Amino acid sequence: MRLAKVVGTVVASRKEDVLDGMKFLVVRDCDFDGTESGSSVVAVDAVGAGLGEVVLYASGSSARLTQVTNNRPVDATIMAIVDLVQVGDEQRYTKDG
Amino acid sequence: MRLAKVVGTVVASRKEDVLDGMKFLVVRDCDFDGTESGSSVVAVDAVGAGLGEVVLYASGSSARLTQVTNNRPVDATIMAIVDLVQVGDEQRYTKDG
Amino acid sequence: MRLAKVVGTVVASRKEDVLDGMKFLVVRDCDFDGTESGSSVVAVDAVGAGLGEVVLYASGSSARLTQVTNNRPVDATIMAIVDLVQVGDEQRYTKDG
Amino acid sequence: MRLAKVVGTVVASRKEDVLDGMKFLVVRDCDFDGTESGSSVVAVDAVGAGLGEVVLYASGSSARLTQVTNNRPVDATIMAIVDLVQVGDEQRYTKDG
Amino acid sequence: MRLAKVVGTVVASRKEDVLDGMKFLVVRDCDFDGTESGSSVVAVDAVGAGLGEVVLYASGSSARLTQVTNNRPVDATIMAIVDLVQVGDEQRYTKDG
Repeated sequence: MRLAKVVGTVVASRKEDVLDGMKFLVVRDCDFDGTESGSSVVAVDAVGAGLGEVVLYASGSSARLTQVTNNRPVDATIMAIVDLVQVGDEQRYTKDG
Repeated sequence: MRLAKVVGTVVASRKEDVLDGMKFLVVRDCDFDGTESGSSVVAVDAVGAGLGEVVLYASGSSARLTQVTNNRPVDATIMAIVDLVQVGDEQRYTKDG
Repeated sequence: MRLAKVVGTVVASRKEDVLDGMKFLVVRDCDFDGTESGSSVVAVDAVGAGLGEVVLYASGSSARLTQVTNNRPVDATIMAIVDLVQVGDEQRYTKDG
Repeated sequence: MRLAKVVGTVVASRKEDVLDGMKFLVVRDCDFDGTESGSSVVAVDAVGAGLGEVVLYASGSSARLTQVTNNRPVDATIMAIVDLVQVGDEQRYTKDG
Repeated sequence: MRLAKVVGTVVASRKEDVLDGMKFLVVRDCDFDGTESGSSVVAVDAVGAGLGEVVLYASGSSARLTQVTNNRPVDATIMAIVDLVQVGDEQRYTKDG
């Protein structure tokens, strides 16, 4: 899974039918402390993530193993909202700052 | 999924039989505002996308989960046409400009 | 799918049994006009592609969805021979030059 | 599989239900001698790996083939703890230093 | 598939049970002539490959389609030993030098 920050939303009214009702979020890979760094992808939200939250997303066929995305043409899904990232002995990120 | 712009077409008369009738489009990864930036791939069109439109495409096995591409040897499929990309509070792209 | 040019052949007499009879081709990613640019992979040929031809190949599990490669340990397969690449209004590549 | 070092932990209380009880570890790709070099991913632990250990992790659908991760939306899993890396005639890494 | 040279071995006594007895080899991507160039991965050996040999390995779910790796949490498998790489009219690599 990749650590990423939710930075935006994509709206797409014309799409494969089975995608109706899904929420497409723009997520950008981030460092351990939540600073945006890497590249961005568009992921379906399976856990009610909000703008600015640090999340984990799964890619590939694993992105289809949530209740929301099951058998859908989706290759990236947010499956967890991160509370804490600890590296070595140090807390690098906590959701409540 | 990746945000990309449709930039071209590929015609291939000699191909695996189950690919007959599919439309192969050249898509190039783009920024939030629709400016072409990243690399290009050839994706099958599952939603009637046209030249110049900003779309989402799914890769890998997920590319086979549309009605058009089911069980076909296809690893990239356009499954949505983008109306709006919002990043933070700002609308970075709208289909109708 | 990736646009690539067939540049060579790999012979491997000792291999997983189910691969017997398959033709392994070296393909190199190319630009819209067929000029070799990106990196190379070894792909199984499912459509009778020849040296110097511009082709499409599929990667990952989708590479196993042709008649030739079904259920085989193969992660890249040529599934189409390209006749034409059109980008915008311009024909960038035609098979017959 | 990739050779990586376990460098941290991610806690996520809000997540897809089937992920309850899984241990999410931050792993960073490393050289043959265990020196951290490449990029980091978050992987589920299937073998009881600890901080500082050099491990192998599998990506993609293969990450779901352990007892712990079966059918879960998980795309990276630690499936082995490395005792020894030998390159050519030289032992480049041993778990017990 | 990727063209790679076998450069080492990984020993891992603590691992997912179904991996018992598998041989983990370090392979490094190589040029057409067998010169090591790209990055390294750890692949399971399905064909009896030895140190210094040039091989093909398959990645992703296709890595599980050999007799040795069937249904195992393995994402890279050596499925062929290369005898010859021919690029254009030139033999760039032959196993017997």
